[in-house]
Amino acid sequence: MPGINGILNKYTSDIERAIKDALTGAPPFIRGVINYHFGWVDQNFEPASFESGKMLRPTLCLLVFDALTGSHKDALPVAAAIEMIHNFTLIHDDIEDNDLERRGRPTAWAIWGKPLAINVGDFLYTLAFKCTYQLNSTQFTAERTLATLGLITESCLKLTAGQDLDLRFEQIQDVSTDMYLDMVYKKTGALLEAAVLSGAILGAADEEIIKNYRAFARNIGLAFQVRDDILGIWGDVAKTGKSTDNDLRRKKKTLPVIYTLNKSTGQRREKLRALYANPEPLSDAQIEFVRESLKWADACNYAQNKANGYIETAFSALNRINVSNQAQSELEAVAKFLVYRSH
Amino acid sequence: MPGINGILNKYTSDIERAIKDALTGAPPFIRGVINYHFGWVDQNFEPASFESGKMLRPTLCLLVFDALTGSHKDALPVAAAIEMIHNFTLIHDDIEDNDLERRGRPTAWAIWGKPLAINVGDFLYTLAFKCTYQLNSTQFTAERTLATLGLITESCLKLTAGQDLDLRFEQIQDVSTDMYLDMVYKKTGALLEAAVLSGAILGAADEEIIKNYRAFARNIGLAFQVRDDILGIWGDVAKTGKSTDNDLRRKKKTLPVIYTLNKSTGQRREKLRALYANPEPLSDAQIEFVRESLKWADACNYAQNKANGYIETAFSALNRINVSNQAQSELEAVAKFLVYRSH
Repeated sequence: MPGINGILNKYTSDIERAIKDALTGAPPFIRGVINYHFGWVDQNFEPASFESGKMLRPTLCLLVFDALTGSHKDALPVAAAIEMIHNFTLIHDDIEDNDLERRGRPTAWAIWGKPLAINVGDFLYTLAFKCTYQLNSTQFTAERTLATLGLITESCLKLTAGQDLDLRFEQIQDVSTDMYLDMVYKKTGALLEAAVLSGAILGAADEEIIKNYRAFARNIGLAFQVRDDILGIWGDVAKTGKSTDNDLRRKKKTLPVIYTLNKSTGQRREKLRALYANPEPLSDAQIEFVRESLKWADACNYAQNKANGYIETAFSALNRINVSNQAQSELEAVAKFLVYRSH
Repeated sequence: MPGINGILNKYTSDIERAIKDALTGAPPFIRGVINYHFGWVDQNFEPASFESGKMLRPTLCLLVFDALTGSHKDALPVAAAIEMIHNFTLIHDDIEDNDLERRGRPTAWAIWGKPLAINVGDFLYTLAFKCTYQLNSTQFTAERTLATLGLITESCLKLTAGQDLDLRFEQIQDVSTDMYLDMVYKKTGALLEAAVLSGAILGAADEEIIKNYRAFARNIGLAFQVRDDILGIWGDVAKTGKSTDNDLRRKKKTLPVIYTLNKSTGQRREKLRALYANPEPLSDAQIEFVRESLKWADACNYAQNKANGYIETAFSALNRINVSNQAQSELEAVAKFLVYRSH
């Protein structure tokens, strides 16, 4: 079995080709912006090769399909669709969050303005639906194609519901850890779950196997996000590529922060709540105070324990699936990487 | 046969109910904003009853389906989906165009800000796909449901491509009338065409009939838009509810304006091009000059002749469809209203 990078890169060129094929015939400007977003061209639409992201979701989809059928090829349209949906949400999220950079480069809206970038996102999203219903023109029955479309549509409803919560949590004082985890499942986990399940549905898995893949995916998604929260505060800047003060400075309400806000009492509680009610970013001294409070609450351990619970549920579900071949082992390896990674 | 208002209102309550049913289970805030956009609640999400728009596209869809099958009921999910897509584009267009008002009320983004409003639009769009694939759970085969989904997805690709052109035309000097009509077909005509064709496909029309409905819809859409351009400049403010100087003041590049820009020569051309290159809105004196130029170019007649050509093509296609019943006559009446209306 190849190492983790080998597994993560295994299908990348096939996925990229499927996305590029889907973009054939798109209006030149829209195609240019999407290619730029993916890192395949520069701002002048000249060929380039920047970082494209890990293509994690389509890889999970293809590994599951491969584990069930012995080949990944026929599921490529839906894998491409899922990666396109993920990137549509990134384009819109960057606009909604006013983020100027992604993957070390200016975001699409920062270059072409919000109106055009919103619309490019809408186009990319639509193209993902086209890729999905085209499954029917190759290998799959109309029924199975529709089931996949239904699955993806439901996950996108969760995705936008999760983004809605995320945007509004910034203005709400009393967010509980349960509310946060519900938001995170919708915003991040739902599409990851749909990626795994579309591989399973197209691979003709029976209901029991689908149930276990669902539990696996849902819990991996949650553990992945909690791990992301931990790395966002305590990760190594050299490895993650982002300052570990960024999330705190922007007052991102991640699991450790929410836990600490809710656990704190007395003067500490007053001070923390005042900091998080203020629209300004945190100063260095304020970041120091939040870090000290996180330590006081033992928030890192709390979050890691939470993640460990998800991890256990995920892998026992995976073990209940009676499939044993290389793709299934690689799926397990990717999942382990996601939840144990240090960057 | 009822009068035009009777026909236009015929299915309204059924369409509204289908949209409201689809919104059941949506997150409360998102549902509230969508209900507000449709005029069913006020800014505090209290029941209200403002203008909802004409629901033209779903009405066309249902009339065609009714003409072919004798009832409109089974096509309601797709009619609702089409109206939802139309309103998703309105929510995003208002953001992209910075429009503060629609139907005499503040736009969603003007109240709740652009980030939340972009996301509400994304949710509404997704819900439209859900309504469409749910056709399969009632009356229609998976194949026919997928064909309808394909049709709608293709029209949404055109829609976003058209919006892209529309946004960029504002910054381009040399837009030809052909470029404009291509943009208009994509931005407005494509969804209207999909509305008519989804009624025809679900109604099991044969290929010849579909071909004629397509020609009918495409040309009605173009004539409708050209008529809109004409009314935007020469319409009566008391009837349209908007100042007839608005389109000119905002330098909207409508067919009469583009025609005049391209036809003008010498000093007039220089002056017009300078006005339309300047980012500022037009002053009253400048509007007067543009009006005088439109008259000089005989742009109103040019546009109406163009519309008349589309109208002729549309109705000869409709006449080739060998269906004769009340719904088909009402379809013809609605089309005539759209292309001959004076408000």
